[in-house]
Amino acid sequence: MNPYRYYFRDDYSEGCHPQILKALQETSLSQQIGYGHDDYSIEAKDLIKQLIPDQDADIHFVSGGTQANLIVIAAALRSYESVISAQTGHINGHEGGAIEASGHRVEAISTADGKLDVAHLSPLLAQLNVVGSTQPRMVYISNTTELGTVYSKAELTALSAFCREQGWYLYLDGARLPAALTAPGNDLTLQDVAELTDAFYIGGTKNGALLGEAIVITHPELKTGFKHYLKQKGAMLAKGRVLGLQFRELFRDNLIFDLAAHANACALSMVPAIEKLGYTFRVIPASNQLFPILPDLVVDELAKNYLFHRWEQIANGHTVIRLVTSWATPKTVCDRFISDLELLTSNHRR
Amino acid sequence: MNPYRYYFRDDYSEGCHPQILKALQETSLSQQIGYGHDDYSIEAKDLIKQLIPDQDADIHFVSGGTQANLIVIAAALRSYESVISAQTGHINGHEGGAIEASGHRVEAISTADGKLDVAHLSPLLAQLNVVGSTQPRMVYISNTTELGTVYSKAELTALSAFCREQGWYLYLDGARLPAALTAPGNDLTLQDVAELTDAFYIGGTKNGALLGEAIVITHPELKTGFKHYLKQKGAMLAKGRVLGLQFRELFRDNLIFDLAAHANACALSMVPAIEKLGYTFRVIPASNQLFPILPDLVVDELAKNYLFHRWEQIANGHTVIRLVTSWATPKTVCDRFISDLELLTSNHRR
Amino acid sequence: MNPYRYYFRDDYSEGCHPQILKALQETSLSQQIGYGHDDYSIEAKDLIKQLIPDQDADIHFVSGGTQANLIVIAAALRSYESVISAQTGHINGHEGGAIEASGHRVEAISTADGKLDVAHLSPLLAQLNVVGSTQPRMVYISNTTELGTVYSKAELTALSAFCREQGWYLYLDGARLPAALTAPGNDLTLQDVAELTDAFYIGGTKNGALLGEAIVITHPELKTGFKHYLKQKGAMLAKGRVLGLQFRELFRDNLIFDLAAHANACALSMVPAIEKLGYTFRVIPASNQLFPILPDLVVDELAKNYLFHRWEQIANGHTVIRLVTSWATPKTVCDRFISDLELLTSNHRR
Amino acid sequence: MNPYRYYFRDDYSEGCHPQILKALQETSLSQQIGYGHDDYSIEAKDLIKQLIPDQDADIHFVSGGTQANLIVIAAALRSYESVISAQTGHINGHEGGAIEASGHRVEAISTADGKLDVAHLSPLLAQLNVVGSTQPRMVYISNTTELGTVYSKAELTALSAFCREQGWYLYLDGARLPAALTAPGNDLTLQDVAELTDAFYIGGTKNGALLGEAIVITHPELKTGFKHYLKQKGAMLAKGRVLGLQFRELFRDNLIFDLAAHANACALSMVPAIEKLGYTFRVIPASNQLFPILPDLVVDELAKNYLFHRWEQIANGHTVIRLVTSWATPKTVCDRFISDLELLTSNHRR
Repeated sequence: MNPYRYYFRDDYSEGCHPQILKALQETSLSQQIGYGHDDYSIEAKDLIKQLIPDQDADIHFVSGGTQANLIVIAAALRSYESVISAQTGHINGHEGGAIEASGHRVEAISTADGKLDVAHLSPLLAQLNVVGSTQPRMVYISNTTELGTVYSKAELTALSAFCREQGWYLYLDGARLPAALTAPGNDLTLQDVAELTDAFYIGGTKNGALLGEAIVITHPELKTGFKHYLKQKGAMLAKGRVLGLQFRELFRDNLIFDLAAHANACALSMVPAIEKLGYTFRVIPASNQLFPILPDLVVDELAKNYLFHRWEQIANGHTVIRLVTSWATPKTVCDRFISDLELLTSNHRR
Repeated sequence: MNPYRYYFRDDYSEGCHPQILKALQETSLSQQIGYGHDDYSIEAKDLIKQLIPDQDADIHFVSGGTQANLIVIAAALRSYESVISAQTGHINGHEGGAIEASGHRVEAISTADGKLDVAHLSPLLAQLNVVGSTQPRMVYISNTTELGTVYSKAELTALSAFCREQGWYLYLDGARLPAALTAPGNDLTLQDVAELTDAFYIGGTKNGALLGEAIVITHPELKTGFKHYLKQKGAMLAKGRVLGLQFRELFRDNLIFDLAAHANACALSMVPAIEKLGYTFRVIPASNQLFPILPDLVVDELAKNYLFHRWEQIANGHTVIRLVTSWATPKTVCDRFISDLELLTSNHRR
Repeated sequence: MNPYRYYFRDDYSEGCHPQILKALQETSLSQQIGYGHDDYSIEAKDLIKQLIPDQDADIHFVSGGTQANLIVIAAALRSYESVISAQTGHINGHEGGAIEASGHRVEAISTADGKLDVAHLSPLLAQLNVVGSTQPRMVYISNTTELGTVYSKAELTALSAFCREQGWYLYLDGARLPAALTAPGNDLTLQDVAELTDAFYIGGTKNGALLGEAIVITHPELKTGFKHYLKQKGAMLAKGRVLGLQFRELFRDNLIFDLAAHANACALSMVPAIEKLGYTFRVIPASNQLFPILPDLVVDELAKNYLFHRWEQIANGHTVIRLVTSWATPKTVCDRFISDLELLTSNHRR
Repeated sequence: MNPYRYYFRDDYSEGCHPQILKALQETSLSQQIGYGHDDYSIEAKDLIKQLIPDQDADIHFVSGGTQANLIVIAAALRSYESVISAQTGHINGHEGGAIEASGHRVEAISTADGKLDVAHLSPLLAQLNVVGSTQPRMVYISNTTELGTVYSKAELTALSAFCREQGWYLYLDGARLPAALTAPGNDLTLQDVAELTDAFYIGGTKNGALLGEAIVITHPELKTGFKHYLKQKGAMLAKGRVLGLQFRELFRDNLIFDLAAHANACALSMVPAIEKLGYTFRVIPASNQLFPILPDLVVDELAKNYLFHRWEQIANGHTVIRLVTSWATPKTVCDRFISDLELLTSNHRR
């Protein structure tokens, strides 16, 4: 095993933040009621509610993002209703057909940067009331997107207004919402997200927890029977305390946002140096995911010491790679990566 | 909060065993590949395989029992095929219709003690090839059962032979399998279970883990595409390491069985005293769940200091209650419960 | 082939009533819009609406009873909601698990005569809000029942009141509703059925049509998106005219009720003679299905000239058989059956 | 009502061929066993088997094409497996999400002429074994396609070879298969179709029947339990005789092919005159569906006397319309349409 080797593969390569481990230790022998009725889950929900306007919102903790998505979507839609997603949306190609398996079509739309806007949605109005067509009823967006881009307040407001006019639900996949809300260019708050969407989730797995996502539902129709869906889909943990406790820690003193800000800072610190080497990016860097376009030979050399996804093979012997930083990424490793890249580039160009 | 108060509600009221916390701490910053390809999951599978004969068995870790059941059953059955269960079986009334929601009928059979035998199954043969009837294809059993009873090797062997003759799958829900295998009267081994069933799971949640169940599949047909089902149902954790690591600890040095033996010993230690007071049990005590029949007034008094389920209201002012002990139950609390019961009984009879 | 041989197997052994054939012939070359927008479907709906109070009812024609049941039930229920049925209900054991395959549990209740009453339903209230339990939301009844029995107006009114109090849907499977409404003891009208239920269907297949059932929906919630469900389940025929035209003929000049009255009269004409021979019935005869209990030897002899279902083998060498008459049954065949039975009985007793 | 008005909307605007009406009349009072065990269904299957090589093929009659598609596909695929279709494929946008509702993703591919070839399929191999991706397992094609185009023997052979190499099923939607097999350029036989695919259906609804499609299954795996799927999806008619009888008539003396040849001849007879007027077609005319591109003003005028679909609005004030002829189309109406078009064109260009 190469001790120098580092994973920029994703933001879930490590265990969890020490504060979470400490809380697990301190509470371990306390007896608690199961299935989400424990003290910690209640405390965590209270902390989250302090950041959103709707005090009647329902909050549920589940173990993963695919689970959150499939349950929210299945609970919201009648069987002939469909969900609109960017082609790159997590539900469209990364969840093994979970949405279709729950009976719903994903209407996938090709986009430049992973974000949907009203111009993408309007053409789907033609399907309404046509019995041969599925009936769009929900818009699914991710923030940050799967390409690391971030919605502005104006963009989210426009989507929200369009959806409300149509009677469509707007659902935001927030696996990396903390990264979005702490991104340099961001002008959205958690309060805005809660006001402008009908449901969203805040990711724990990618932001320092062992596992766990917090689903927040503000639209009354989506609240109905949600606990029954959770149970039925196997998403209600006997020891719900494990999820509640972690979110209590993450939302105590802003920890989750501090961790996300660190991840963003790590990734974005590498951007100027990469650009200085003359490289471009598949999308403009905005958060903790970078998609630089590098020569294949440089990529092969980097791969000896760093793990990352080869995102897309493009023309002229170049590859888009994905670099992801996390709450646990040491700033020094980013510096080391850059100096390695400089050296390899210089060798390559010689 | 009454500091004297103690939960005999279930075996998942506490966090987890200290050895698991220690391992989480020690490994937290190690970077690992996601989705079950981490080192700890591999180590855990190796440890489990040392206890079963079939080295080609597939092992998968999931977060809960309902999830394990619904995925195994949905993966095994065609949509017109059904699963046979005791009326008291967990899938029949405690999983919110998870099996039906995945498209399958549960053929529920009334039993005396929560166990199925061949005489229960034979009448269902009449449904075979009748197009109006669902086609039974799997037999679901729990060990220990939901009533705390335990299958003998002869019983499991008979069920297994019948199922193999019919081409039916035999699936064992082992949420409390460690309790079964360490029960005083037990003559089954994990090796037997693996040989006589087609799939089973070993519960972590009820045996000292934060969460997690280990599904073991020995029948080749049931292995096909299983990872795709896991993904699609939202059961494949990004940080699969969290499950793998816990099972590594539980199966290192027999920890899981020691914990279960402790739980059994706690519960069974109370039986002679309860019987000496003249009380009977709904089913003969065999493991870490007791179902004593007590006068309602005594139950009301006990409830002031102990949490437990009121299982069933029966005639003559009596109630069946359920007492469950766990890996974390202090022996002293059992002793205290008994002396409280003695006192209350004596007051009640005066 | 024995020319003497006659089928008392069911009420769908023949093609269709001559008036339907005539209409098919007369309209065959008229061009019509597809998918239920044809003139005949509109005329048929108008005729049906003349018999019910709710002029806003939605009427849809589908090809069979299982299809009607599965679509109405799937459209009405959320995935964790269940439907209550008598054990003998068609959805419970005669539709190949269609309801479970659409994701819903059938809560089956054992009854004496195939009819449900409030006392059967009350115990299920205990499941409400328990996350481990499915949530009953619909009551399914058949009229006539699968045992040929008939609901009185008082019975249906009581069920309806209970369901409305609980916010449960009441759905009536009317595969043999014309037989029920023309049965000698009946005091219900189609108007009552429409007022007291939330949805029901009127069977064409068992009442002189080639195929077809008319679903009538009065509850506004159940109307939403129903055409999309029909399309999606493959129930919307391109030539919807075929169904519409048949119902136009059946509801013109009361034909469907005249046909049902004939079927009832045929069956009931045999009852006094059967009783005179000293035989009893499994349930009191009320419509076009009889369930006499006959000696096995007599049954074997009858089976040489008549086709019927052997319903249930009972003690002492006796069998319950099912005899069904239809719109097409000649009265003379019933007389012949009786004289054959008299002869066989006399031989048997000699 | 304009007596001059004629429907070129589709090939299911009329009732049925007189020979079918005659057979319905002649057999109406014959008593038959239900659910497809009637004499006529058996005779029809025998007639179809005379045209295909595989005498072990399973044949099932259902009431419509969406029903055929959803049952074949749902029966063939595991829940994580998907079906590949042209973007224009009937299952992709014309069945209300029926395939997704049965749990499967449709992998839609953009094509020029509605036909799939191996180059379309190869890129999907990249999804295999990726847990985040659905697993393609079936290729769905239509012949004729939804654009009226026809597969050649070489094309079908290449698709078949590719599918067999991958272990993928090849399924052919034959709603208009008789039109394909009698199209002027066609070199395929029904025997070829049976040999090169794993399952297909032959449409009755669009070829002179009141309703009905004949599903032919040659791949052994797809036969398993098919009757149970039919029952469960509500596709097994009590009076299966209605479907069997019609297919008996359609396959007696080649009637179905004669009817399709007539439909093709009617449509294609209009092509030279349309081209002579200087108009082009969206796809080259090959069977009973034409897609001429006409000036909007001419389309508006035509619409006063003819019903047809406006397929697609294109640039420069032109519209693609769809003209469909059927077994019942009088040749004289085609002539009249052409002379109307000539007149309108001449007026338009003046």
